[in-house]
Amino acid sequence: MTVITAVFEIRDAEPERRALEIAVEQSHELPTAVAPQESLHSLAHVASVVTREDGVAVATIEFPTELAGGELTQLLILLIGNVSLQNGVRLIDFAIDGGLAQAIGGGPRLGTAGIRRRVAAHGRPLLATALKPVGLPTAALATMAYDLAAGGIDLIKDDQGLGNQIWSPFAERVSAVAEAVAKANADHGTSAVYLPAIAGPGDVFVERVQQAVDLGADGALLMPGISGFDRIAEAGRILGDDRIIYSHPSFLGGFTASDEHGISPEVLFGLITRLAGADAVIFPSYGGRFSLTPEQCAGVAANAARDFAGLTPILPSPGGGMSIDRVPELVAHYGSDVLLLIGADLHRGGNLRAAAERFREAAESA
Amino acid sequence: MTVITAVFEIRDAEPERRALEIAVEQSHELPTAVAPQESLHSLAHVASVVTREDGVAVATIEFPTELAGGELTQLLILLIGNVSLQNGVRLIDFAIDGGLAQAIGGGPRLGTAGIRRRVAAHGRPLLATALKPVGLPTAALATMAYDLAAGGIDLIKDDQGLGNQIWSPFAERVSAVAEAVAKANADHGTSAVYLPAIAGPGDVFVERVQQAVDLGADGALLMPGISGFDRIAEAGRILGDDRIIYSHPSFLGGFTASDEHGISPEVLFGLITRLAGADAVIFPSYGGRFSLTPEQCAGVAANAARDFAGLTPILPSPGGGMSIDRVPELVAHYGSDVLLLIGADLHRGGNLRAAAERFREAAESA
Repeated sequence: MTVITAVFEIRDAEPERRALEIAVEQSHELPTAVAPQESLHSLAHVASVVTREDGVAVATIEFPTELAGGELTQLLILLIGNVSLQNGVRLIDFAIDGGLAQAIGGGPRLGTAGIRRRVAAHGRPLLATALKPVGLPTAALATMAYDLAAGGIDLIKDDQGLGNQIWSPFAERVSAVAEAVAKANADHGTSAVYLPAIAGPGDVFVERVQQAVDLGADGALLMPGISGFDRIAEAGRILGDDRIIYSHPSFLGGFTASDEHGISPEVLFGLITRLAGADAVIFPSYGGRFSLTPEQCAGVAANAARDFAGLTPILPSPGGGMSIDRVPELVAHYGSDVLLLIGADLHRGGNLRAAAERFREAAESA
Repeated sequence: MTVITAVFEIRDAEPERRALEIAVEQSHELPTAVAPQESLHSLAHVASVVTREDGVAVATIEFPTELAGGELTQLLILLIGNVSLQNGVRLIDFAIDGGLAQAIGGGPRLGTAGIRRRVAAHGRPLLATALKPVGLPTAALATMAYDLAAGGIDLIKDDQGLGNQIWSPFAERVSAVAEAVAKANADHGTSAVYLPAIAGPGDVFVERVQQAVDLGADGALLMPGISGFDRIAEAGRILGDDRIIYSHPSFLGGFTASDEHGISPEVLFGLITRLAGADAVIFPSYGGRFSLTPEQCAGVAANAARDFAGLTPILPSPGGGMSIDRVPELVAHYGSDVLLLIGADLHRGGNLRAAAERFREAAESA
């Protein structure tokens, strides 16, 4: 019998007792004293509890792999579902076997190598930016995309604020921007890709992914905090083996805003998002408008690339207030297998194409 | 032009500056100094910033209603998407107009009145429990459901840990348990309902909701933290106007585990879940295994019932380690429009039906 291994930080005066409570909560949700004998095969077990030098206890808990039922959604429920509601418990690592990873969908289809092939960029950091602000008409967004592609940006995505609003309806925007990026590539010999933001409700989500394919997009920007991590693989089946899935952290912040509960950013962005099937993952980098530390950010990047259940490595994409000036420092921190996301800074100075060119030069010489 | 109003607690030395940053982050994501003139109609505005007696600032921010594009997913993105990643910002209230609420799906179909009608229970607190633990064979779960219905439980749901595992596959379980509950109702003159847990990935989610209908279930237990809040309305369209949607808080804890960021539980469970279309909402009650205060719990119940965008009231369902002994106190705290959820406590003593009868008696005399 194989197991799912989950590692939790526990902040509690009695960590052994608490670890046992977590194992029970996340499997049976019933005190073992009253559980029928014929159910005990499904109970999770505490493998070890070790107190670190900083006084925080680290518990390793093993779940029968069958508890996940071959589904990412059920895996997330057992890893952290109920105990996400408790303080003092934090998921900091997990491991599953390759069979469960395959049942879940096999993870990323392109990953780092596939994205590099799609944008014809090797041996250098990759560049991403967002079309913004919401409220602009489609023609203005398409012109913006042309200039950014011509200037050397590899990956152009919609801002997460762009949905299906009156100012630039989804289908109209995807068609016009995909065409503008293709024209820029033809005019300038670039290989930029365009990924529309897709967070439509219910079956609209699936319809928009199909529209993105039909209208010439090169993939999609998805928001698993809004749509559910499981919809990454669902979108992947429609997008096929040659379109890129880029994950955005919107609505996931509850898990990252405290160090004493939830899910560590290294696991949330580096492992869960990768297992779900994203080819690149945006996370709030240190030194920006959000709250992660340099060490947490390096951990996200490490988890995005390390051996994990046979999955292909994916690109970490630090964002959230980055600037061109910081490219050398960011590349030094993350390495060259990185998708640098810079948004607003390209808009300063009033010449988007020139700013994109400076961004590209900074990345090539970093 | 109508607006979406969002109210945030801000913990920051400069709350006015921070409120402005939130308004920009959650609409344009671009400094207004570099935003094109033709985009300014979509910018959110700070209506007021007031510092309370406790020193916490409260900012009211107004967004053009068009920013939500008529979709719950985009509404969640603008209410808290990016700033969920920041400490010191907490969504504590919001308001939308009835037109947006209708575009989103119109909210709950049954609500409190509809559930009371379905289970033929008026003027008393309602009773819910869960089939558990995962790992039991279907026959044992069906027997358990029969005893619980015969004992007077109104609403019997799968535990969230029950998915499509080898021990009790989804379709086999739904069919057998629905039949057992129907037989108990026929034998004992009760009106119990059965709601299977549905958190399948991608299109499996929709398939299971349809299976639940086809196999005789009375609704579904959904986990919006896992599946996305938007899937509540998607399930509702399949379930129709006479089946119950019950919301479970799994994987939502990141938002509730600190008082200084995220979304207040009053808004998360009382307003967002209701707007999404759930008829009853489980939340971790005070005095159990989780972390909410009595005041927060009362606030959830108040928000579940108050006037909000023309939506029907829904049932608050406090759970997470409740016991029969506490029924009088819980009813005193929540009022009689409540769906009391007691799980493990019914299993103590070894006679489920007798425990269900004691639970029912406690609720009827509370």
